[in-house]
Amino acid sequence: MAVNLPSLPPLKAIAGIQVGTTCAQIKPQDDLTLFELPSQSHCAAVFTRNRFCAAPVIIAKQHLAAATPRFLLINAGNANAGTGENGFVDALSCCEAVAQQTGCAINEVLPFSTGVIGARLPVDKISAAIPQAIAALKPDGWEKAAQAIMTTDTAPKGESIQTVIEGHPITVTGIVKGAGMIKPDMATMLAFIATDAAIENRVLQTCLTQAMENSFHRITIDGDTSTNDACVLVATGAAHNPLIDSPSHPGYNGLVTAVSQVCRQLAQNIVRDAEGATKFITISVEQGASQQECLEVAFTIAHSPLVKTAFFASDANWGRILAAVGRAKVDNLDIHPIQIYLGGVCIVENGGIAAHYTEEQGEQVMRETDIPIRVVLGRGDYQETVFTSDLSFDYIRINAEYRT
Amino acid sequence: MAVNLPSLPPLKAIAGIQVGTTCAQIKPQDDLTLFELPSQSHCAAVFTRNRFCAAPVIIAKQHLAAATPRFLLINAGNANAGTGENGFVDALSCCEAVAQQTGCAINEVLPFSTGVIGARLPVDKISAAIPQAIAALKPDGWEKAAQAIMTTDTAPKGESIQTVIEGHPITVTGIVKGAGMIKPDMATMLAFIATDAAIENRVLQTCLTQAMENSFHRITIDGDTSTNDACVLVATGAAHNPLIDSPSHPGYNGLVTAVSQVCRQLAQNIVRDAEGATKFITISVEQGASQQECLEVAFTIAHSPLVKTAFFASDANWGRILAAVGRAKVDNLDIHPIQIYLGGVCIVENGGIAAHYTEEQGEQVMRETDIPIRVVLGRGDYQETVFTSDLSFDYIRINAEYRT
Repeated sequence: MAVNLPSLPPLKAIAGIQVGTTCAQIKPQDDLTLFELPSQSHCAAVFTRNRFCAAPVIIAKQHLAAATPRFLLINAGNANAGTGENGFVDALSCCEAVAQQTGCAINEVLPFSTGVIGARLPVDKISAAIPQAIAALKPDGWEKAAQAIMTTDTAPKGESIQTVIEGHPITVTGIVKGAGMIKPDMATMLAFIATDAAIENRVLQTCLTQAMENSFHRITIDGDTSTNDACVLVATGAAHNPLIDSPSHPGYNGLVTAVSQVCRQLAQNIVRDAEGATKFITISVEQGASQQECLEVAFTIAHSPLVKTAFFASDANWGRILAAVGRAKVDNLDIHPIQIYLGGVCIVENGGIAAHYTEEQGEQVMRETDIPIRVVLGRGDYQETVFTSDLSFDYIRINAEYRT
Repeated sequence: MAVNLPSLPPLKAIAGIQVGTTCAQIKPQDDLTLFELPSQSHCAAVFTRNRFCAAPVIIAKQHLAAATPRFLLINAGNANAGTGENGFVDALSCCEAVAQQTGCAINEVLPFSTGVIGARLPVDKISAAIPQAIAALKPDGWEKAAQAIMTTDTAPKGESIQTVIEGHPITVTGIVKGAGMIKPDMATMLAFIATDAAIENRVLQTCLTQAMENSFHRITIDGDTSTNDACVLVATGAAHNPLIDSPSHPGYNGLVTAVSQVCRQLAQNIVRDAEGATKFITISVEQGASQQECLEVAFTIAHSPLVKTAFFASDANWGRILAAVGRAKVDNLDIHPIQIYLGGVCIVENGGIAAHYTEEQGEQVMRETDIPIRVVLGRGDYQETVFTSDLSFDYIRINAEYRT
């Protein structure tokens, strides 16, 4: 059901990083992924802001603050969320199993879980499978990992690009999972991105934050954020470019651009593989008086079940888009200068349906699967774009049947 | 598909008010309703805050400010919204047709429209049908009107109660339509309520505002507000109770209680007849530090598509409720004192799933069609309750097929 989701491209290895996957019997296929990071690497991360964040999120934050990670352990099928004290014990036990088998410290392991909320993590199964994951470690394990971290995703999602920074070839490779509960400030999303660039730890965090701003923070599927979202960016330094030690370093912009490009592709792929999606909708709000109001209008449209259902029906129901703009929380919004475009067709102007608009024009745009909406507010110079999907029978089916 | 929606009770006439319905050929059945109000009546109203509000909303506000209404004219099937300048001309033409046929002034007619957005109002059909609506005027026309204002509603909705104020029997009768696009601050909702109580105009508006607070402003179906919402409260004074001339008048509380009771029943009936609803969900948030945060938590749960879909599946997926509470925009929310109850069953405590909770308990609650969720925040003394429905295949079907 994915909407023009690109098939998984070859994912280039990142010098120094090894990836292993195996089946821990939580799911019938590979469900456990282990990343081994070189000791000199740096690691930045952004986590969900949900107050009921899962135990592995809290443990991962603590470990990241205390040590430089040597391993990332990811299981699919069970989120270890809403599991209270048991959840912490279980997440730590899994880290401990990795530590015992590899000789690293417990806090050099970051745990990640995704899947059903509230069931206890099957620690025995995971611990028993860790030796297989270690045995499977190899530099080019990224494609298999993209597969093993999936839950309701219909296909693996990854991206790999190369660039040159100060004369040194640099690779950025990333994988992502997540197909529902997607919203700004993170979601049921796990993203693992790595580069061989040499960059200081603090600057790496700035780079990740900046790259997320126009990618993962600009997508929404159903407005729900999850308890487990995390996005990790690792830099190994193996490319031996001159160390990027500040955002004003000459190499910084090139790296941010490359990481942003990977994040944007991964974020859009999540929307293209949204639960039940049949349309990929790009909502641009232009000429706003602030970034904030552009985002408010864009997300109000993107979260409207009526707009999303109309797209599912390929119905150019511009009235629902207009109604969503009209209820967005924007101070003193004057509707008269507002223009709304569906594809290249102006559907709303002068406070109502555009004079020259015909149903045929709307229908023609709606026949596409990739559809842009442009809202021109006529109030200022700010512009923002968000990406979303439609709301279909299959969204309901997938989310109604998830646990059964 | 309605969820335990009470069948339409007998709707008592309000002395002085006549109601007539007819078919203006916008729909195959009665689609035009006319209320005639006595000259000494008062009229209060609350309208949608959507910036793209429909032409009839703007005209109704202007007329209400300029004169005392003698007629309310309501058509279903066409919302006359998003119709730009034409919309104003069309709404005024309909008012003019009533004025010509009855001898009242144009601004003594309030127009209301509900239905498809963006199509021009068929003024000729409506004008041609007005004589029939006038001929049909009768005191006990309320039941037929409840039917004639429907759009995607599956059944007519009304309520009628009697009370005694300072020794005088008083009647309050109301009808409502609206089955999607329902949210606080009004919706695709039209409500017409009348009483024979004697009350001053300004106090009547206070009474309506107060009655809406715990009724129409506490329901949500899909988070969308419409361009056409309106709620009207008429008082004829025919009961000859001592004139209620201030909120401290001894008769005021009795009247507010009666009007609130009618509004609450009408509001809950809208949710029970929500598009595709199979569950009626009551969300109470207790022990909040403010009214605001109680509403924020309640509406975050009520708007979560994942929570709503789980209810459709009768799946006690408490993790989705917990995740919604966790992402509600409440400052410094500590999750540890929070308890969440599904029916009488505690499902969340101490930051995770409740120790004694079993799936069987959750399943038993989910077998019901009326389901209460209670969230105890442990932060203060405020309490709020909102009502919502689940998200089903039929919601998608109804909203995908609405125009076809």
